[in-house]
Amino acid sequence: MGQIHRYTPARDDLAYTFGGRLPVAHLAPGDVLSTWTEDCFGGAVRTVDDLPSKVCEFPYLNPVTGPFFIEDAEPGDTLAVHFLAITPARNVGVSSTFPHFGALTSTHTTATLQPPLEERVWLYQLDPDAGTVRYRARTSDYVVDLPLDPMHGTVGVAPAGFEARTTITCDAHGGNMDTPELRAGATLYLGVNVHGALLALGDGHARQGHGEVSGVAVETAMHTTLAVELIKGAATPWPRIETDTAIMSIGCARPLEDAYRISQHDLVGWVGELTGLDTLDAYQLVSQAGEAPVGNVCDPNYTMLAKIDKTYLGGRTPYQNVHARLRQTPIPPPSQTGTGPS
Amino acid sequence: MGQIHRYTPARDDLAYTFGGRLPVAHLAPGDVLSTWTEDCFGGAVRTVDDLPSKVCEFPYLNPVTGPFFIEDAEPGDTLAVHFLAITPARNVGVSSTFPHFGALTSTHTTATLQPPLEERVWLYQLDPDAGTVRYRARTSDYVVDLPLDPMHGTVGVAPAGFEARTTITCDAHGGNMDTPELRAGATLYLGVNVHGALLALGDGHARQGHGEVSGVAVETAMHTTLAVELIKGAATPWPRIETDTAIMSIGCARPLEDAYRISQHDLVGWVGELTGLDTLDAYQLVSQAGEAPVGNVCDPNYTMLAKIDKTYLGGRTPYQNVHARLRQTPIPPPSQTGTGPS
Amino acid sequence: MGQIHRYTPARDDLAYTFGGRLPVAHLAPGDVLSTWTEDCFGGAVRTVDDLPSKVCEFPYLNPVTGPFFIEDAEPGDTLAVHFLAITPARNVGVSSTFPHFGALTSTHTTATLQPPLEERVWLYQLDPDAGTVRYRARTSDYVVDLPLDPMHGTVGVAPAGFEARTTITCDAHGGNMDTPELRAGATLYLGVNVHGALLALGDGHARQGHGEVSGVAVETAMHTTLAVELIKGAATPWPRIETDTAIMSIGCARPLEDAYRISQHDLVGWVGELTGLDTLDAYQLVSQAGEAPVGNVCDPNYTMLAKIDKTYLGGRTPYQNVHARLRQTPIPPPSQTGTGPS
Amino acid sequence: MGQIHRYTPARDDLAYTFGGRLPVAHLAPGDVLSTWTEDCFGGAVRTVDDLPSKVCEFPYLNPVTGPFFIEDAEPGDTLAVHFLAITPARNVGVSSTFPHFGALTSTHTTATLQPPLEERVWLYQLDPDAGTVRYRARTSDYVVDLPLDPMHGTVGVAPAGFEARTTITCDAHGGNMDTPELRAGATLYLGVNVHGALLALGDGHARQGHGEVSGVAVETAMHTTLAVELIKGAATPWPRIETDTAIMSIGCARPLEDAYRISQHDLVGWVGELTGLDTLDAYQLVSQAGEAPVGNVCDPNYTMLAKIDKTYLGGRTPYQNVHARLRQTPIPPPSQTGTGPS
Repeated sequence: MGQIHRYTPARDDLAYTFGGRLPVAHLAPGDVLSTWTEDCFGGAVRTVDDLPSKVCEFPYLNPVTGPFFIEDAEPGDTLAVHFLAITPARNVGVSSTFPHFGALTSTHTTATLQPPLEERVWLYQLDPDAGTVRYRARTSDYVVDLPLDPMHGTVGVAPAGFEARTTITCDAHGGNMDTPELRAGATLYLGVNVHGALLALGDGHARQGHGEVSGVAVETAMHTTLAVELIKGAATPWPRIETDTAIMSIGCARPLEDAYRISQHDLVGWVGELTGLDTLDAYQLVSQAGEAPVGNVCDPNYTMLAKIDKTYLGGRTPYQNVHARLRQTPIPPPSQTGTGPS
Repeated sequence: MGQIHRYTPARDDLAYTFGGRLPVAHLAPGDVLSTWTEDCFGGAVRTVDDLPSKVCEFPYLNPVTGPFFIEDAEPGDTLAVHFLAITPARNVGVSSTFPHFGALTSTHTTATLQPPLEERVWLYQLDPDAGTVRYRARTSDYVVDLPLDPMHGTVGVAPAGFEARTTITCDAHGGNMDTPELRAGATLYLGVNVHGALLALGDGHARQGHGEVSGVAVETAMHTTLAVELIKGAATPWPRIETDTAIMSIGCARPLEDAYRISQHDLVGWVGELTGLDTLDAYQLVSQAGEAPVGNVCDPNYTMLAKIDKTYLGGRTPYQNVHARLRQTPIPPPSQTGTGPS
Repeated sequence: MGQIHRYTPARDDLAYTFGGRLPVAHLAPGDVLSTWTEDCFGGAVRTVDDLPSKVCEFPYLNPVTGPFFIEDAEPGDTLAVHFLAITPARNVGVSSTFPHFGALTSTHTTATLQPPLEERVWLYQLDPDAGTVRYRARTSDYVVDLPLDPMHGTVGVAPAGFEARTTITCDAHGGNMDTPELRAGATLYLGVNVHGALLALGDGHARQGHGEVSGVAVETAMHTTLAVELIKGAATPWPRIETDTAIMSIGCARPLEDAYRISQHDLVGWVGELTGLDTLDAYQLVSQAGEAPVGNVCDPNYTMLAKIDKTYLGGRTPYQNVHARLRQTPIPPPSQTGTGPS
Repeated sequence: MGQIHRYTPARDDLAYTFGGRLPVAHLAPGDVLSTWTEDCFGGAVRTVDDLPSKVCEFPYLNPVTGPFFIEDAEPGDTLAVHFLAITPARNVGVSSTFPHFGALTSTHTTATLQPPLEERVWLYQLDPDAGTVRYRARTSDYVVDLPLDPMHGTVGVAPAGFEARTTITCDAHGGNMDTPELRAGATLYLGVNVHGALLALGDGHARQGHGEVSGVAVETAMHTTLAVELIKGAATPWPRIETDTAIMSIGCARPLEDAYRISQHDLVGWVGELTGLDTLDAYQLVSQAGEAPVGNVCDPNYTMLAKIDKTYLGGRTPYQNVHARLRQTPIPPPSQTGTGPS
């Protein structure tokens, strides 16, 4: 069993790209990290009068904690990041519309001559004991409780090709994938592109709908505990997720059908490897047994997942059974670092 | 309680368009129809050697049963089609690759210079008692049982604007939507575009994966029983589905993000009507509580659904509670018409 | 030399679909047709106060003249339509914005929650002698003359597969392609899908920009003279154009890159046939020598053309040199039918 | 008149990103730079047997020369880059297919299960005196001369938001736009995102077709002379080009219609500023008078241009008439640096 690291960033330690930053700490394979992430607004939206376009400043959006240098990680390896616990670090989550951002508005790329939608902020009471997120309408007294389902929207490593990419987008290196599948209990696999991998994470969501249609989930700071492992010599072209019951491939692209194609293509290949099926037989099995959860349909690249239940795979498990081993990692006692930087 | 109609088409009665055909029978609101549909290959694929491109001939693909004239239906009304039972009419389902068709191949519109994938047929044993669909690999002895989950891929009415549209595609009139949500117990709402609506259905699937990635599900003929109702003066711009637990809006378009936009846009408006929320408040609720099941990502128009659990809608139900009423319709005893035309 | 037909439709003779209509007249290969087409608004927009959404009624938009039955035309043949003359039938052209239509607005498929752009009408003085179309701003005194360049936005035949398609869209059967290349002097090739082909045309533009970005060109009624010819046994999968200097393939699809792919794919094959180059050599030649004029980026299907100068084809001409022969057709004296139906 | 700089990179000086690199030289506004760029293959493809996927290694593709620090350039300014001369530095250009790259093949994002197209190399003789590029088929004796039309496919500055982007793609910072409009005589305007702007350029094409359909143009090293100027306090959101006869806005995005939207949207705003037309009047003018040249339809982001003839703008010129002034810059005598690094 590895070492336990506790790391809480100061405000100036937050990063806004994957790649192009020096590491804030080193983790060894097998180590556990207990850390804190700020929300996508940098914590600046605290009341319904804090309009994001006023209180936030580009490019200081969607900060991530890290990057963490993973010892022994080299290009061609796969980094496994297992989420042991993701817990809201505040009792309020925030959401909003944002000018020319989201799926049901014109944007800077789907450019139209129409003015933006009204910018509006919503606050959600988070109740971890009840397991709820309370929606409260702004223009009526409508209130409804939704299930609390904490997750990280943004997790990734440094990209290949000397690139540094904004944390707003996602691609083969991970990043802003915004999938509810990235909750505690899941293992994320990321291909390593640079010496040390340079893992970073942020963008906690108390919950989100499929596609994050307005562009913004129930955003909050998070206390997160994860364990890392390294699969040497195993390349992973696109991010993948494993849970106790399913494996998933993630595609990031525009248009959305390309995100679908990437994810299904990767899953077909993966299922073929695990089952020994030839390509067309694996294609057929995925065609009938596969699912396609939507990640985001609002960021610069959209995200789709291709998912298949492990029961259809005849007992085969990927990556040398690392998910099952990481699943056994004891969760360390809570950090005493409080709610992050003041 | 309405009349019970039994209708089994002869081969020459099958239709290949929505619109442009005279009705085969009349149904009154409240009536029950017990009918039979042929599979998407016209029943021509019976062994693994029956390659669809050899045994099928364009445009005789994806036949539908109907159209049925709905009495009193006029443009501006909504037709409710409640599926009481969908039962495979054969004990074998068929699937295949098809040249330049499907999501992981170039197609006639995503045109490339590459040759098509190998054409291959799979047969599935259907076991209604066990509730399974048996996948059997073609190039290995891999076998796995998947849940039987019968549905109709293609249900629609005549389109607006004097159009007749191939049953291969989908649009505002319904058609080849290929969503697993269209199973027994669901009510489909379709806007009426022409006098008599002209409902038709086909393309039974013993089950399908999300997006129907290979382009073909587990195809089979179906015995199907449905009840129809009419909501006068209620327009429905895009197809919608209601189940006991959820409401759903359907978008059909390319690129896939437009199918997503249409469906989410319609659901936002619908949720606003049901809850009294203003547009942005409804947008926000759907953003956090909504789901986005994928229909097809292989047909000329792609299909996505926007779905929300009824528990978040404060007890409001749409369309004058017609789903709950139709849900009470007794299922008539099985038709004696056997397995359809010989 | 064939017969000369003169045909002017009454208002009720106008059609709103390709397919699904009986022919208004018969033409034999070699015949010349002198006819009249109404503008896309059905002539209802006459002043800047005639807002299209008020004075026009769906589906009575984009009327076409025809269809014309082409004798001897059978599926698998190619119809050649050579435009001898296209002359504005009015001295005023009209344009407008239209709610949720055009490339720089959200639409019914690229659906957003934003209100539509202001609806506004522009009138253009057409001066055939000067060869100009006069733009006049609505909110300032800005005036500028643009070149008169008359063309037909919409020309097509009945589609395959028993379909009838609205004249608003385009596809393999032609239709609303909106390319400035369809001017006098050009020959349009259309694959025949049904007995008699059923040619129809309309949507005259005094001129248009590339992509018809606002969704509406300088619309006007047209006096048009064309000659038809038939190439028996030659299939044409997508519309093609030939001029004295170039050949062009047309693709209609969404997203726009698929329209590009279709058109370039067809041109690569066509160049290969004409030059004897193998597929990759033809691909390479088109890659360096080809052009890609944009048709429309506003209709239900977008249009792109792939074009190559004939000088790069080593003197080969397509379709048995029919363009050169049709080019010799004498233009009959002007019709005495005036400006169309009153 | 500014200083004349001559800079020829050594092989190790070449860059593979915009952003993330230290400058190789400083230029002051008004200065002239005479430099050399390597071809997109790093010069490694010299015979038809040098298959790019064998002789090139990711990420050492599409090298650029630079970056050049522009004195006084700060975020919010606009950098004007006027191309005085672009001359092939070799007498042979190379092109190829490349596995899973190009518009008429599946790619890593438009992922299919099909194998890649055959990889094949073509060599073109460049004859500057005759002004020709000689195409020679690989599988026949077909030869044809195309016009020499030298241009740079890739020109850009460091992106905003701390990003470093591969030279393979394009975005608001410029990059791999692949438009034939970027030839000698043109002025490129780029918004400055970082202190010093950090201009770099490469990817010379002896010529290319519209959309660069195969993914590769007639690639060659270039001797290039350019002059730089700075427009302080003028923001430029997307790259723009000015020539003696036209102004153009450039959009980079997927799907292709978004590249179209961005470019047309920017041009509408730009025309409005220059002419005083309100937004809808400018939209209308661009709709009827605008052109839409295609850049690339093969790179990670596609490129489209929106173009309008200056004669329709009533004599107004943008950016304080800097294009006309730069146009007067004398071209310095040729560099003595030969054909670049040995």
